Amino acid sequence: MPDVESAARAPVLADIEAAAERIKDRALLTPLIENPALNEAVGGRVFVKAETLQRTGSFKFRGAYNKIKLLAAAHPRPRSIVAFSSGNHAQGVAAAASLLGLPSIIVMPADAPAIKIANTKALGAEIRLYDRYGEDREAVAAAVMNERGGALVRPFDDSGVIAGQGTAGLELIRQARAAGATLDAVLVPCSGGGLASGIAIAVNALSPATAIHTVEPEGFDDTARSLRSGRIVANETTTKPTICDALMSASPGVLTFSILQRLAEGGLAVGDAEVFAAMEFAFRVLKLVVEPGGAVALAAVLHGKIPCQGRTLAVVCSGGNVDETTFCRALTPRGGRASGRLEGCGAVAG
Amino acid sequence: MPDVESAARAPVLADIEAAAERIKDRALLTPLIENPALNEAVGGRVFVKAETLQRTGSFKFRGAYNKIKLLAAAHPRPRSIVAFSSGNHAQGVAAAASLLGLPSIIVMPADAPAIKIANTKALGAEIRLYDRYGEDREAVAAAVMNERGGALVRPFDDSGVIAGQGTAGLELIRQARAAGATLDAVLVPCSGGGLASGIAIAVNALSPATAIHTVEPEGFDDTARSLRSGRIVANETTTKPTICDALMSASPGVLTFSILQRLAEGGLAVGDAEVFAAMEFAFRVLKLVVEPGGAVALAAVLHGKIPCQGRTLAVVCSGGNVDETTFCRALTPRGGRASGRLEGCGAVAG
Repeated sequence: MPDVESAARAPVLADIEAAAERIKDRALLTPLIENPALNEAVGGRVFVKAETLQRTGSFKFRGAYNKIKLLAAAHPRPRSIVAFSSGNHAQGVAAAASLLGLPSIIVMPADAPAIKIANTKALGAEIRLYDRYGEDREAVAAAVMNERGGALVRPFDDSGVIAGQGTAGLELIRQARAAGATLDAVLVPCSGGGLASGIAIAVNALSPATAIHTVEPEGFDDTARSLRSGRIVANETTTKPTICDALMSASPGVLTFSILQRLAEGGLAVGDAEVFAAMEFAFRVLKLVVEPGGAVALAAVLHGKIPCQGRTLAVVCSGGNVDETTFCRALTPRGGRASGRLEGCGAVAG
Repeated sequence: MPDVESAARAPVLADIEAAAERIKDRALLTPLIENPALNEAVGGRVFVKAETLQRTGSFKFRGAYNKIKLLAAAHPRPRSIVAFSSGNHAQGVAAAASLLGLPSIIVMPADAPAIKIANTKALGAEIRLYDRYGEDREAVAAAVMNERGGALVRPFDDSGVIAGQGTAGLELIRQARAAGATLDAVLVPCSGGGLASGIAIAVNALSPATAIHTVEPEGFDDTARSLRSGRIVANETTTKPTICDALMSASPGVLTFSILQRLAEGGLAVGDAEVFAAMEFAFRVLKLVVEPGGAVALAAVLHGKIPCQGRTLAVVCSGGNVDETTFCRALTPRGGRASGRLEGCGAVAG
């Protein structure tokens, strides 16, 4: 691996600015959206960073493209790119590697949904299936790397990946300024913490008074608990699954946690019904398609997990890769929508 | 009516620039979105002007706010604002009048869906119901205007309304330029023609080589047929309804038609199944919630109604006010989705 050392140190603002320059011809500058009905619903000013509109439907393209472009310029140049993921990271890596002319091999469980395998293939990746009960995915990935002269792109615990995700924070602060707003807080969906730590670095450097909060699904709030206890804590293995399939990593990364410990105010958690209600709000009021894991920060402001009254906040809607069955389930009250608070405000933009 | 004469002449670029200045604190500058998977699907470059993200969920707020602000500054100042509509125009007028401190009375058929009545009320309007079989809505509106000292805000055939809608065209051309693009054509959803004619004026003034095409539902292509025959032609009254409830006006307006006749290249039409497929594409690939009438221009490029290969186009997605039943129907193949062309490209951002 050509950049083993740089990959393991926390990026600084200059790394994120360099990443922004590196990805700017391929990644989209996603809009920061202000919606009067959302402001009214929470009694404050809430901006939405719509990473749902990013290439491949989530922020993951930013980090993958930055990292793979760094790898492609290294000596020796890797002959291929390897990743293990069945979700948004896989799609980001596949698209980025294709654009940079490198073959990508994505290691996925053999029982991953056919649609996810097909989507990743369609973006140009080769898929290497493994048996999740009989094989270890890291061992499988290591074997593929050896066979194919590959470099691994980790989903979050890597400086180049974190710097790439941080470009969303750079844009967010500049866009808020252009709208005449100074942010009291930014809420970021969190799994392994790549997006949250990247954004934390950018926001802390450009707007030090702005607080950063991670948001996770209840039961998968390993980052919140790690931040509280001052050391990395994993989720209980007995926790029942959440609807937020993108936010199920077992624990924060070593690098991401060290950054968040230094820069984040704390971590929030939301329940599945609150996530569904936020997706429905995004559909009805914001007119955005947001996947469950992408909607947790919006859910946190809509459900009073943080004071909004008279304050100015930004939430990141981090992805929109949701199948129609799950999406339509979120839109119907029997799908588990939380009741109460949202009823009054929703009608204003229906 | 204080501005009876100015309301009846076609606006020019300066009127649209003045409207942009007038609405800028209240209307949103909606993003112009480029999506690589959409480009790939059509073999060209297609920008999406997301008016779905506009205040009240459609472009209608632009025209309503511009017109009502003009009325509020006139002498004598009207004591109220009157409109007849059960759709996006009603919501735009209600929101704009509230923001400008004027009461609004919206004349709606008594059998309008309860949700539309509730939404318009929630935006601050008073609702005056009429019997669509026994009463004439224009007579009802005239009576309300007399009783309440009201000024009428027409849905499209008014210079102030057209100038307001044209601000979307002003933004679109500037945003395309900022992205380094020169547009070969702009496709605009069309009912009475307020949005299309306003955009046509702005685009023609700023980018005269860019062609303007209206897009309508099949069977409701009165503007396309009027443009072809050189005179205003109405839809057949026997036409069966379209899923595009926002695009069912009987014929273009006198003012809007005179503008489109001078500035539009021609009119296109799409079928309901093509509209559903475009809504599904917007959900799956663009991650945008688009209502049927708002999706016709996108449907036209996705279904080859205009050459896209190697060209640069923009489509306006004009609104996102769709109920969850209709939306979810569009997402399921049995809902009438058109097959064929879209299958290959869709997966790339799934």
